[in-house]
Amino acid sequence: MSCVHSDAAGQMFAAGAPRVIVAGATGFAGALAAHLLWRHPRFELVTVTGRSEVGRRLDQLYPRYRVPLAIEQLSLDGLDRIDAAVVAYPHAAAAPTVGALRERGIRVIDLSADFRLASLDIYEQWYGEHPRPDLLGEAVYGLTELHRERITGAGIVANPGCYPTASLLGLAPLARAGLIADVVIDAKQGVSGAGRVFDDTTHFSMAGENILPYKVAEHRHTPEIEEQLALLRAAAGAIDEVAVLFQAHLVPVDQGELVDCYVTTTRPVGDSELGELLAAAYEHEPFVEVVGAPPGTRDVSETNFCRMFAKTDSHSGKVIVLSAIDNLWKGTSSQAVQNLNLMFGFPETEGLT
Amino acid sequence: MSCVHSDAAGQMFAAGAPRVIVAGATGFAGALAAHLLWRHPRFELVTVTGRSEVGRRLDQLYPRYRVPLAIEQLSLDGLDRIDAAVVAYPHAAAAPTVGALRERGIRVIDLSADFRLASLDIYEQWYGEHPRPDLLGEAVYGLTELHRERITGAGIVANPGCYPTASLLGLAPLARAGLIADVVIDAKQGVSGAGRVFDDTTHFSMAGENILPYKVAEHRHTPEIEEQLALLRAAAGAIDEVAVLFQAHLVPVDQGELVDCYVTTTRPVGDSELGELLAAAYEHEPFVEVVGAPPGTRDVSETNFCRMFAKTDSHSGKVIVLSAIDNLWKGTSSQAVQNLNLMFGFPETEGLT
Amino acid sequence: MSCVHSDAAGQMFAAGAPRVIVAGATGFAGALAAHLLWRHPRFELVTVTGRSEVGRRLDQLYPRYRVPLAIEQLSLDGLDRIDAAVVAYPHAAAAPTVGALRERGIRVIDLSADFRLASLDIYEQWYGEHPRPDLLGEAVYGLTELHRERITGAGIVANPGCYPTASLLGLAPLARAGLIADVVIDAKQGVSGAGRVFDDTTHFSMAGENILPYKVAEHRHTPEIEEQLALLRAAAGAIDEVAVLFQAHLVPVDQGELVDCYVTTTRPVGDSELGELLAAAYEHEPFVEVVGAPPGTRDVSETNFCRMFAKTDSHSGKVIVLSAIDNLWKGTSSQAVQNLNLMFGFPETEGLT
Amino acid sequence: MSCVHSDAAGQMFAAGAPRVIVAGATGFAGALAAHLLWRHPRFELVTVTGRSEVGRRLDQLYPRYRVPLAIEQLSLDGLDRIDAAVVAYPHAAAAPTVGALRERGIRVIDLSADFRLASLDIYEQWYGEHPRPDLLGEAVYGLTELHRERITGAGIVANPGCYPTASLLGLAPLARAGLIADVVIDAKQGVSGAGRVFDDTTHFSMAGENILPYKVAEHRHTPEIEEQLALLRAAAGAIDEVAVLFQAHLVPVDQGELVDCYVTTTRPVGDSELGELLAAAYEHEPFVEVVGAPPGTRDVSETNFCRMFAKTDSHSGKVIVLSAIDNLWKGTSSQAVQNLNLMFGFPETEGLT
Repeated sequence: MSCVHSDAAGQMFAAGAPRVIVAGATGFAGALAAHLLWRHPRFELVTVTGRSEVGRRLDQLYPRYRVPLAIEQLSLDGLDRIDAAVVAYPHAAAAPTVGALRERGIRVIDLSADFRLASLDIYEQWYGEHPRPDLLGEAVYGLTELHRERITGAGIVANPGCYPTASLLGLAPLARAGLIADVVIDAKQGVSGAGRVFDDTTHFSMAGENILPYKVAEHRHTPEIEEQLALLRAAAGAIDEVAVLFQAHLVPVDQGELVDCYVTTTRPVGDSELGELLAAAYEHEPFVEVVGAPPGTRDVSETNFCRMFAKTDSHSGKVIVLSAIDNLWKGTSSQAVQNLNLMFGFPETEGLT
Repeated sequence: MSCVHSDAAGQMFAAGAPRVIVAGATGFAGALAAHLLWRHPRFELVTVTGRSEVGRRLDQLYPRYRVPLAIEQLSLDGLDRIDAAVVAYPHAAAAPTVGALRERGIRVIDLSADFRLASLDIYEQWYGEHPRPDLLGEAVYGLTELHRERITGAGIVANPGCYPTASLLGLAPLARAGLIADVVIDAKQGVSGAGRVFDDTTHFSMAGENILPYKVAEHRHTPEIEEQLALLRAAAGAIDEVAVLFQAHLVPVDQGELVDCYVTTTRPVGDSELGELLAAAYEHEPFVEVVGAPPGTRDVSETNFCRMFAKTDSHSGKVIVLSAIDNLWKGTSSQAVQNLNLMFGFPETEGLT
Repeated sequence: MSCVHSDAAGQMFAAGAPRVIVAGATGFAGALAAHLLWRHPRFELVTVTGRSEVGRRLDQLYPRYRVPLAIEQLSLDGLDRIDAAVVAYPHAAAAPTVGALRERGIRVIDLSADFRLASLDIYEQWYGEHPRPDLLGEAVYGLTELHRERITGAGIVANPGCYPTASLLGLAPLARAGLIADVVIDAKQGVSGAGRVFDDTTHFSMAGENILPYKVAEHRHTPEIEEQLALLRAAAGAIDEVAVLFQAHLVPVDQGELVDCYVTTTRPVGDSELGELLAAAYEHEPFVEVVGAPPGTRDVSETNFCRMFAKTDSHSGKVIVLSAIDNLWKGTSSQAVQNLNLMFGFPETEGLT
Repeated sequence: MSCVHSDAAGQMFAAGAPRVIVAGATGFAGALAAHLLWRHPRFELVTVTGRSEVGRRLDQLYPRYRVPLAIEQLSLDGLDRIDAAVVAYPHAAAAPTVGALRERGIRVIDLSADFRLASLDIYEQWYGEHPRPDLLGEAVYGLTELHRERITGAGIVANPGCYPTASLLGLAPLARAGLIADVVIDAKQGVSGAGRVFDDTTHFSMAGENILPYKVAEHRHTPEIEEQLALLRAAAGAIDEVAVLFQAHLVPVDQGELVDCYVTTTRPVGDSELGELLAAAYEHEPFVEVVGAPPGTRDVSETNFCRMFAKTDSHSGKVIVLSAIDNLWKGTSSQAVQNLNLMFGFPETEGLT
């Protein structure tokens, strides 16, 4: 393939490939995004930045990712030839950088919560003051399967939270059909979901052999799920609100997330109708697999797949939708790459299979 | 302490101590029961039996339990001087042995499902034909905190399933107050819950790094929870039925179980009322701890404690009750010992703290 | 890429690609070989066979591998158009099948121990009677980095054991320089090394939270290491024998293997000489990484890399060589693919990075 | 038992029981020591102190230990009625506190390295300046089985490192018989060995699925093992030095430590002689179990036992001694209690079985 270049560090990419940076590559999400872009045949990863560990090579910090770039401090000068950026900062810290990048014409995938909520009120209720409310209108919610067309042309893609990704993919077919009267979501996630944070929660001797519920009745992913669910239901003409009860747990896996959605439906829904709804929604989706048996998170580990199973509980009449993803991949960084593929006109699966 | 004897194998127990056997000591539940009884100061563990591994010493099969008895085949002759038995057989296999032991006047703790359901119909719907329906009337459901008085005098104690133990302890205060209109139970358990069963589910390389839902909308613990819940609600005058949606998951811990109960209440229940209900129910219970923060299963690992936390979700109005136990201890074998203590007039906590 | 075909099941491979089967695809090693060949751009995986699970699809047994072929019984008829086979059978069971395949002109990678030892005597001492001693002369020991040239033209490649792979890569530079007077090898491996075998050793509740030495002073990989080591030392003119003390352990990881080689050298060897020896041996090797800090097995997880670190213990004068691989990848199945690449004239790294 | 008191917090202990404090109870070792002393029938745990987390209750920090004391700052005033202290500080930080406690007549178990080495030179070579060299002569090395008599009357007991505990118990019978010519020790330990330290080494997502060698050829436990080994060999008349090669590894277990000692003997030692040596050394030891099969660390988890197995490798002539302990129990805190029992004239096993 004569059109493929190899830079000094050994990266292989096509000539004229979009040049990308990852800002905040020292955390789990940023590091994985860098890894995926480094081995991607269509993007050139030119810089990785961090607010700590500057000067250290990323493959020293994350040996298994084998990205041999030194971590730099983000400099907004000299970004002239950069086409896109993945920003992996904490919420509130992300928005000013996203703004600065946009002002230089760079297209941004923001992994933080800063641009996920359309409603400024709800953002400020959960996260405090928004640093750049002026940009909210420009952002597209980056759950690929729900907003593919708008993502294609977006300047800012607000990459979804991992819990909303799994939850909304599971609920969308029912929501669009106007079938959701009430929903309880019970989510379980591996410790990587806490990020490269060092405390009693993430220490092996405390996270191991533990099943730990957290943020009971107060998880910040709740409004994100509700806002998107309202959009989906509105399309079916539903105007009443559905309050989502969302509860998260840490379990001793590294990467993996399972979401159980317990849906009270507006009318009885049998297994065959359920199967048809899911099939119709996802039969052409490259990364959503509707399966005939309960999915384990191992089935989707280190992939961009969401694996899904649904069943009616004949006993209670409720519908159970199970949705499994890798929280760092489809839940975060590989979905970011899926979105970048769309934004730059590449096949959506490029670099992801 | 001159009244304490030591037998040849080094066991310490009081003279005249009730003599106990464990039938089915090769499985996880039976082995732990043997371990707890071996080190118990008031019982004399005289025999452990198994349907496999006969002749092998139990401390070879389970080195950490250090019970130096050889595994024997159960012989119904020569049980004359036995006072009590713990039967750790699979359902349907247990009932005939329980019957034979009862006919010899031996008091039995049955760890199987055979005598947990009062309704023969429901038993047969979930488990098939019952081998000894004539004994159903004699059995007491062995969730200690709910049926303490009847257990004291019982000939057969049907030790509860681990999921019903955690679930019912969590739901009882609300059920007795007639506050439950609807309930979804999402349960997570360690791999020991599958027992000493060797298959793709329990292999380290498949159970590890996995979160696996199983028996979707068809777990056999559902009717057990429903039957007991109906009893509790009936005490509050509730006569309508509440269908329980129960969903179980395996996660990569060894011993540990967390149950999340999502309750739609019959009227709004605030956190303070909730706190009072739980405190009133459990303030004098030696093994139920109502705590002020979400409990992890590590907190109760290898103990007979159930640790509980409840909160109202102001958003949806539902009540969340979290209940953590060790599935093999309070969920099975240490609750069996707690019941044996009651049956023989010993302090309920003896040998368990 | 117009030259790439897609078969009915979605596999992508070049036209005229060698057609390969995996015999014994139900075990961990065979399944991974099938996965790697399925996604390989230059081979066409046409059949997977098993002695159990016939009729089941491989992606039901191993969902994460996504190989949608049904498991068949191996039929030696109808193999006319097959170019190569990976045989993943237990020792003694493999040799007859390898022979039958060879008689049909098929080139074979044998993952068993049947053709690893050149000495029939030593084979029979450790494994019993050899089913096909006539084929021993035809087999090449498949540690790629040591026998690359002979592998290229081989009819039978005896893929090495995982422990010998890591050990010999670590020891080869010292052995070739005639520096090894004595060696102790302490190896640690994840539970996948035990294979899809269901017993007390592999059950999560027994393998978890355990560090377990096994086969003390009697592991079958010892003679394999010794025979190859003798070959390497002979090249340096050493004719005396070095008895290898090899000790293996299971630890609670899934895939990963670390080997510590403690070498008493024939003369003092300092860190700089050590560094030069390793660099000279491996600087052009695509899959051996000599690194400046102790490698963890995570660094090479799910890769064909061997990561190596060596240091002289100034205190005792001994040399420590640490060698980390993924036991199922470089230790078994990806090394098989590396060898297949060589045998069919493809770049050695094809399908492996 | 009318002589048993219960204090306000529910602790049960005998009247007139020695009053003990734990200084540094926020770390893993101190917290476990507090747990063991709290439930000990003969000691009264009166105070737990910490340099952080002051004011928080220990059972909030370590829920499973259920010690309901608030963490205090250590005050050297008001220690008049204290009989003993367990000091769980880092090396160098411990010595001044140990000194201050001794000056108040308090008997001390020091868990740090400060008083383990008799040689000041060697201490300073590995740890830097010693804060209280004047106290070195007063300290007794607290490996109970080796120094029982001197521990009984000691003012300062230097509790051994966990690696030296397992290693020296394994090597002592051979050393005393003058049989050790050379030894390589390969040690594997769970993550709790790193303590309540928060970094890349202890994060679940990095420690999990990893086998990690560390401090290659430079672990501080080496001189501790060498010094004690020299004492044991000297008793057999051996005056030459044996340089110990010691190498440590972290594996993904919480608590557990396995040490493999590879011994080149001064003359051939067969399995029967080996068995007799170990039996003679340990047949009356309550906490050392010489067993007939390789011990896993699960066998001794959460116990004060050391389980040991030895075998001659007929191939190389070397002797392999395997020694398994729980690094936090026998390796640290329960050995501290074993020593306290001796110091106060209680049965050595009190509170430990």
